[in-house]
Amino acid sequence: MDTTLDTTPLHKAFDDVAAAITVDPLFAATRFRADSDLVGLCEVDVRIGDRTLKVDEPTPLGGSGAAPNPMEYALASLGACQAITYRYWSERLGVKIDRLRVEVRGEQDVRGMFGYENVRAGFGSVDVHVQLTGPEAPERYTALREAVERHCPLLDLFASPVPVRTRLSVT
Amino acid sequence: MDTTLDTTPLHKAFDDVAAAITVDPLFAATRFRADSDLVGLCEVDVRIGDRTLKVDEPTPLGGSGAAPNPMEYALASLGACQAITYRYWSERLGVKIDRLRVEVRGEQDVRGMFGYENVRAGFGSVDVHVQLTGPEAPERYTALREAVERHCPLLDLFASPVPVRTRLSVT
Repeated sequence: MDTTLDTTPLHKAFDDVAAAITVDPLFAATRFRADSDLVGLCEVDVRIGDRTLKVDEPTPLGGSGAAPNPMEYALASLGACQAITYRYWSERLGVKIDRLRVEVRGEQDVRGMFGYENVRAGFGSVDVHVQLTGPEAPERYTALREAVERHCPLLDLFASPVPVRTRLSVT
Repeated sequence: MDTTLDTTPLHKAFDDVAAAITVDPLFAATRFRADSDLVGLCEVDVRIGDRTLKVDEPTPLGGSGAAPNPMEYALASLGACQAITYRYWSERLGVKIDRLRVEVRGEQDVRGMFGYENVRAGFGSVDVHVQLTGPEAPERYTALREAVERHCPLLDLFASPVPVRTRLSVT
């Protein structure tokens, strides 16, 4: 990445959100949705609003490798959320960032998903490496990092259980 | 979705994976990666192999709404993974599926991410509704569902903590 970040204030996101919640407390209760249709061997079309994402498995796992798989999308969501949360909180704390990259790595033992006993189905571990360029003293970035660790929604998803309800309807 | 699913055996994914692990136990240890660059106000480009995903926040949260946000990508990965795990295990158990849709909904109180105390940063709850059409007896689909619940990698991510290590490098 060779360009310097857009330094426009984040539409004053913090102030705007606080004002919106004061006007309407229900503003804070956000709902997200994604609808997935199995359309091929293990190819899935996911609709989010008026957009469609393609998901597939790589050929060693039985797919045709036509798109990233769910594990890759999950790591992408974590890395992007870390970057955005750094962006929000850099404004909140007045800590300038010139460039920001987040490299995320995840390990999975695929035996778990194929039914081998005593093997976890999902990620065994995840590594997040944030690489940041900026003019502030190191302790300012340490404070920024601490704020991000407490407030990043996707880090929360990875690190803590979420109540999930599943239903199956057969017709 | 109006078409019937591709009923080609899943390249015998189960047998192929078992054979590959017998030949090389390290086959099972899979690594995934995603690299995120902050490229705009809160717009992120995520590279996965030679593909790039766009991520953004909606305008009420300070972004420009140019792409789905991380919460939506996370729900997409869960829905797609449920669909693919149903597909794998329908073959494993010999349970025929004609059509499969997975609707995923997630709730978030956005106050958490903006630093309000005692509000969780991420999803408060998630609802997964699997809608399936097929010719088998109901108890066959119940057995299929139980297998999917045990072996879906993304359901595991949502339901159980993953060890995450974070690092920050400042230059």
